[in-house]
Amino acid sequence: MQLTRAADYGVRVMIHLASIAKGERVSRAELAHTGAVPDSFLGKILQQLVNGGLIHSHRGKSGGFELAVPAERISLLDVIRAIQGPIYLNTCLMSGDSCDRQGWCAAHSVWIVAQARMIEVLEAARLDQLARESALRQSGLVEVTWAKS
Amino acid sequence: MQLTRAADYGVRVMIHLASIAKGERVSRAELAHTGAVPDSFLGKILQQLVNGGLIHSHRGKSGGFELAVPAERISLLDVIRAIQGPIYLNTCLMSGDSCDRQGWCAAHSVWIVAQARMIEVLEAARLDQLARESALRQSGLVEVTWAKS
Repeated sequence: MQLTRAADYGVRVMIHLASIAKGERVSRAELAHTGAVPDSFLGKILQQLVNGGLIHSHRGKSGGFELAVPAERISLLDVIRAIQGPIYLNTCLMSGDSCDRQGWCAAHSVWIVAQARMIEVLEAARLDQLARESALRQSGLVEVTWAKS
Repeated sequence: MQLTRAADYGVRVMIHLASIAKGERVSRAELAHTGAVPDSFLGKILQQLVNGGLIHSHRGKSGGFELAVPAERISLLDVIRAIQGPIYLNTCLMSGDSCDRQGWCAAHSVWIVAQARMIEVLEAARLDQLARESALRQSGLVEVTWAKS
């Protein structure tokens, strides 16, 4: 029930890309540095984000990476799905009849609701807002208090 | 972000134990059969539930397994924790300073909220209610409609 390391790194990369000015591009080296992402992970993650339609990759002198979609239209859920695939709290939630108990198992309904509550939060979190918030916190203008509780 | 197979089987075992009359005990063979739990899993799961203080194991002729705590006081969260340990949606939520970005990373706050929403649902789901609901559904007295949506 844990985010993969790759998805966590992917989120860092995407928040950084959401923080740069429109039209600018970021090098792979900068993404590795700001996200503290090991190089062994980064190539695959960037490829998955490209394949998922979330970023563009440009070659050449003025090359680099940029968001393919405006940041306000990308949620944390989109990033997670692009990297680790769809979220299923339990295998019985996968499409099709993956469990023959789901017609009557009361726990099945609980998994559905628990997963929906979690997904709602991940879907509501948009990259533009996360990038702004991270920048403010790093600048010390906003103190993080509630997240510590 | 998925429940382990062992935890899923543990939930099946616990719902079955919550469905029997007080004072009765259930054999390991019956638990394996009703939960469709492979024997290779069952021994360890039962041990973890005993260690977690959720069930009692009795030897001898009238031996078997029973809940150690009234079913209404056991949540799905308790069962999951006894088998797969605490739930952390991301490693940065583990206690201690597992990530040096958590002071300013805006995603960290989202993980906290998403995890809390999911945990609320798992904690609210009590075994007595799940056992009653599963029995009603199996009997055909309650049709499962909303869980399909």
